[in-house]
Amino acid sequence: MSGRRYEVRLSGSGGQGIIMAAILLAEGAAVYGGKQVAQTQSYGPEARGGASKAEVVISNEPIDYPKALVPDLLLAMNQASCDLYSKDIKREGIIIIDSTNVGQPPPGRTIAIPFTGIARREIGKEFAANMVALGAVSCLCPEVTEGAVEAALMARVPPGTRTLNLKAFKTGVKEARKIDTAKLRHRYHGEEAEV
Amino acid sequence: MSGRRYEVRLSGSGGQGIIMAAILLAEGAAVYGGKQVAQTQSYGPEARGGASKAEVVISNEPIDYPKALVPDLLLAMNQASCDLYSKDIKREGIIIIDSTNVGQPPPGRTIAIPFTGIARREIGKEFAANMVALGAVSCLCPEVTEGAVEAALMARVPPGTRTLNLKAFKTGVKEARKIDTAKLRHRYHGEEAEV
Repeated sequence: MSGRRYEVRLSGSGGQGIIMAAILLAEGAAVYGGKQVAQTQSYGPEARGGASKAEVVISNEPIDYPKALVPDLLLAMNQASCDLYSKDIKREGIIIIDSTNVGQPPPGRTIAIPFTGIARREIGKEFAANMVALGAVSCLCPEVTEGAVEAALMARVPPGTRTLNLKAFKTGVKEARKIDTAKLRHRYHGEEAEV
Repeated sequence: MSGRRYEVRLSGSGGQGIIMAAILLAEGAAVYGGKQVAQTQSYGPEARGGASKAEVVISNEPIDYPKALVPDLLLAMNQASCDLYSKDIKREGIIIIDSTNVGQPPPGRTIAIPFTGIARREIGKEFAANMVALGAVSCLCPEVTEGAVEAALMARVPPGTRTLNLKAFKTGVKEARKIDTAKLRHRYHGEEAEV
């Protein structure tokens, strides 16, 4: 009975700030975007392998099952999570990898952005990689606007770290805007264009 | 196919730090307690009435459905969330209210602790009410230990606010320990003892 669902899975190792990114994406879509949203983290044995995940399900209608079943968008911030989760994704789905940490991306369909390298070089803080990635995800996810997620970020992040987090977020948006989504669409239909 | 589930619902208004408390409870139970845990927030129209919730489902086995169906434990940090959620709880469940904000508690079965007042008077920061409440919940929830949740708190909270948050947490534990749980058990069987 649920309407069209858009499922996002953010994944990485513990400590990479995956949950905070998921909460901001969820609050952007819901509080500032008017969508119905469910945000979930599950803790189980897979986390011991260095792959933890946080999920955001977005819909225009009430959400019956709150976890991602076949994600439309996967963010993988490390190799373990990329290996574990990239096979679950929808055929036309988007996989975004942190190419600083993922040396062996899955074949095809992958957008590679060095989030951790960008955070280190351009923000001066490696731990801001999650906010760079959130900016890119906000740009590439059709169910939220960058402005809505930015509003969620400004409302939730403590004043003392707001400037740094906002800069990281905007850098991620800018990187994602460089991606040729027309080319990407082609690739989803089975061609081999590289992004 | 899931084993025994223990369902916790934390509720209040936006800005009361419900989600952070839920994440710490979940990480205490999972990362430091070895349980399987699902942690969820749903954003929908009910939030506009001042009642938002975050849920933690704890089990010894993989969790099939990650949301609370009939909570074992409800924390209500404001009147709107108490009114909305107190009717859903399990018959033998525990309802814990922030009596600073909830002037009209549900009949029977309720543990009243003035979390916000305690945070204001003993911690000097009203926004620490969520950590006072988390201490009490950790003490009263049979599926986690206070030590495990404290470890999660120490690992996740930024160093600058760790002392304050830890003090708030421990104050909540201390308040909850004053509660006569034997009396409470009686009340759950339909008697009218007050706590």
